[in-house]
Amino acid sequence: MDASAPILPLDPARRDAVIAALRPRFGDRLSTAQAVRDQHGRDESWHAPAPPDAVVFAESVEEVQAVVRACAQERVPIIPFGTGTSLEGHIAALRGGVCLDVSRMNRILRLSPEDMDVTVEPGVTRRQLNAHLRDLGLFFPIDPGADASIGGMAATRASGTNAVRYGTMREAVLGLEVVLADGRLIRTARRARKSAAGYDLTRLFVGSEGTLGVIVSVTLRLWGIPERIASAVVSFPDLASAVATVIETIQAQIPLARIELLDEVQMEACNRYSKLSYPVAPTLFLEFHGTDTSVEEQIASVEAIAAQHGGGSFAFAHAAEERSRLWQARHEAYYAALALRPGAKGWPTDVCVPISRLAECILETKRDLEANGLLAPLVGHVGDGNFHLVFLVDPDDPDELARAAAANDRLVMRALALDGTCSGEHGVGYGKMPFLAAEHGEAVEVMRAVKRALDPEGIMNPGKIVAFSP
Amino acid sequence: MDASAPILPLDPARRDAVIAALRPRFGDRLSTAQAVRDQHGRDESWHAPAPPDAVVFAESVEEVQAVVRACAQERVPIIPFGTGTSLEGHIAALRGGVCLDVSRMNRILRLSPEDMDVTVEPGVTRRQLNAHLRDLGLFFPIDPGADASIGGMAATRASGTNAVRYGTMREAVLGLEVVLADGRLIRTARRARKSAAGYDLTRLFVGSEGTLGVIVSVTLRLWGIPERIASAVVSFPDLASAVATVIETIQAQIPLARIELLDEVQMEACNRYSKLSYPVAPTLFLEFHGTDTSVEEQIASVEAIAAQHGGGSFAFAHAAEERSRLWQARHEAYYAALALRPGAKGWPTDVCVPISRLAECILETKRDLEANGLLAPLVGHVGDGNFHLVFLVDPDDPDELARAAAANDRLVMRALALDGTCSGEHGVGYGKMPFLAAEHGEAVEVMRAVKRALDPEGIMNPGKIVAFSP
Repeated sequence: MDASAPILPLDPARRDAVIAALRPRFGDRLSTAQAVRDQHGRDESWHAPAPPDAVVFAESVEEVQAVVRACAQERVPIIPFGTGTSLEGHIAALRGGVCLDVSRMNRILRLSPEDMDVTVEPGVTRRQLNAHLRDLGLFFPIDPGADASIGGMAATRASGTNAVRYGTMREAVLGLEVVLADGRLIRTARRARKSAAGYDLTRLFVGSEGTLGVIVSVTLRLWGIPERIASAVVSFPDLASAVATVIETIQAQIPLARIELLDEVQMEACNRYSKLSYPVAPTLFLEFHGTDTSVEEQIASVEAIAAQHGGGSFAFAHAAEERSRLWQARHEAYYAALALRPGAKGWPTDVCVPISRLAECILETKRDLEANGLLAPLVGHVGDGNFHLVFLVDPDDPDELARAAAANDRLVMRALALDGTCSGEHGVGYGKMPFLAAEHGEAVEVMRAVKRALDPEGIMNPGKIVAFSP
Repeated sequence: MDASAPILPLDPARRDAVIAALRPRFGDRLSTAQAVRDQHGRDESWHAPAPPDAVVFAESVEEVQAVVRACAQERVPIIPFGTGTSLEGHIAALRGGVCLDVSRMNRILRLSPEDMDVTVEPGVTRRQLNAHLRDLGLFFPIDPGADASIGGMAATRASGTNAVRYGTMREAVLGLEVVLADGRLIRTARRARKSAAGYDLTRLFVGSEGTLGVIVSVTLRLWGIPERIASAVVSFPDLASAVATVIETIQAQIPLARIELLDEVQMEACNRYSKLSYPVAPTLFLEFHGTDTSVEEQIASVEAIAAQHGGGSFAFAHAAEERSRLWQARHEAYYAALALRPGAKGWPTDVCVPISRLAECILETKRDLEANGLLAPLVGHVGDGNFHLVFLVDPDDPDELARAAAANDRLVMRALALDGTCSGEHGVGYGKMPFLAAEHGEAVEVMRAVKRALDPEGIMNPGKIVAFSP
């Protein structure tokens, strides 16, 4: 399938009208400089970038509303932008328009340690939030790797290494404030932990990728920093044994905070890049959170399960510094992968399947890669059945690019055939749009009906999730 | 506010046309008998019932589609029905129409112990499901008290005593199959534990109360039966101390399975009704799930917190039989409350607030009840900030009914003022509709836009959640 979307330039008259309308209010905070536009049209993926016509740096809800109203008046696209760390072309301005950069809306608006929740502006990043929380003994666990903005994480339903225990943004967001496509401001929910009062608008906007409105505040659940944290690394004779260990650990309901799989290709990359000396073999990175007693008990249980599957001895990291080195290596996996093949471009992709089908999906995928002469290290949040490949491709080799594209198609169709999803956490953007019908069938029409109901003119991040012409 | 909704009779010609169209296919499984209609127009609430014009007992997805298509053709309302145990008038046929009883669709369609998930028809009840799972060491924890159908629980976003640990139907449902208002069948999600592939239609239909479509299958997460379960009862000198214990327990992230508050009025009712002899004082019912070590540790932690707040000694129930007697008493709380005042009618209501505001909300509510001479025992899933009152009212005393209605209004507005919700788990139905605008403001218009997009003719359980005229 072709993951490239048509790029339709915007009518210059409409573009100019919006810029003229916004310039007096925003002054320097409205930019049409090529460098600024280019930076805002490119995410961290391999997908073709597309610069917006202008970038506005909003600093308040009222300013977001002003931008949306001006764009709505001229039917000019609006692309919300946080840190630009998405991976499926989410922020490419496929039809031109105004990029609404909310990174300067980065205040923590309200914090209740008693309720363990916080309300932040969308430009607050997860590291900024955690630095703010640390002294209170609280933390926000969702960790997609990048220091993404909370608004962007909500918009893309981000998850990451901790999701196996703490869930994804789907579970962590208690409520949102959203500026709709006509400039109205709504609040999707109050702060109660649960509610049965009407349609779940919070979950409708979480994962909507800016196609239904602009998120202008996020209320999040927080968690207490555990009394004890321990990390461990264990390697296995083969992938099937590593995956069997994961499945049994999940079935035993051991409340691991992290259980990450790296295949032998990725381990070699990590050893080289992060100067480690782990065995070059399928490996699990583990993290345990809890009381002292509970962490000891969890470790003993997982050690027993791993031993039954031929796992080696656990290399522990108890001190904060050691743990941080270990997880640093995990977070650098993408750059480590790139360094495996200098000059290559990384093309990340992800799928997620029921955990019972994980070994099958991974093993078949690795056979496919080998048969097609592709280098693509594998890492995975395998406790959720979610794994990633990074195709390392020569951008100047059209044949190799075509082989990678075909392998990506087969990967997605394999995941769907196993009752999985075309994206566990990277989202749809425009990169995974061609697979949505295969995954959801008629339900795509329901998504389109919702899109039409909330954005009848089709100005909110057009060309993403569902194709839609007003 | 007036919680009664206008009852609009259906045009007899349209009613007759639908019945004539469906009779050949359904025969005896289409009933217009008054007793059957009455039974299907009445839930377990105090709200005025409204019988449908006909009841169809569907046995397959195709039959549900046939009923929906016949009704759509004549623009006749459809009211999905599981066990009729809802509490806010959800199933009242306010505009007449066809009640679609799915209780005979009660097969377990698929079960994966490895993935710990199951797919069931909507008429499967939670006890039926748990009986099916027991020998596999698995269970489905969500427990609203009544032996409700899984379809109804999904439709109303049910929760209950275990939600503090296991979440609500919002978290437990992995995917749904839904027949839309025009008869199309969709599947909202595949079986992956997480997905970032498009709008979260699963969560949109969970809690939609039959107003967007008919749920015809539900895929649920399951959990392993814990190695050890222990229950305990502890009483406190006053409500504030009991609530402070709850707050600290939650903040300490002790993973309790249940933490239920019963006030002194409810304790007296339970003692009498269930032949117990607990102190007549604010009381917590607790349940601990985990390994032996973890349960011991949890108990020690909660005992220490409770002692700091003047809590008495814990009365434990370790054996399954003792535990079941204790939770039976909790589940019988409603009937126990009714027995406190023979001849009275019970009028249940619920709200949910951030836990830091719980004591304030409960204490102010109890002062209000006392000042207005109302008897209303209080029970609560207080770990979530959720509590219930049952007003015990003389149905023949209009003055008392008016005082109860006014107290209910004040309760809701109090919860909203504390950033809570008008319903933590009972839902909207038509009983809580008058409060939706106060809670959600402009967001109600977004709900209405979604309703209009998915049910343009307004035939799906009309008069519930959002008012809507095609």
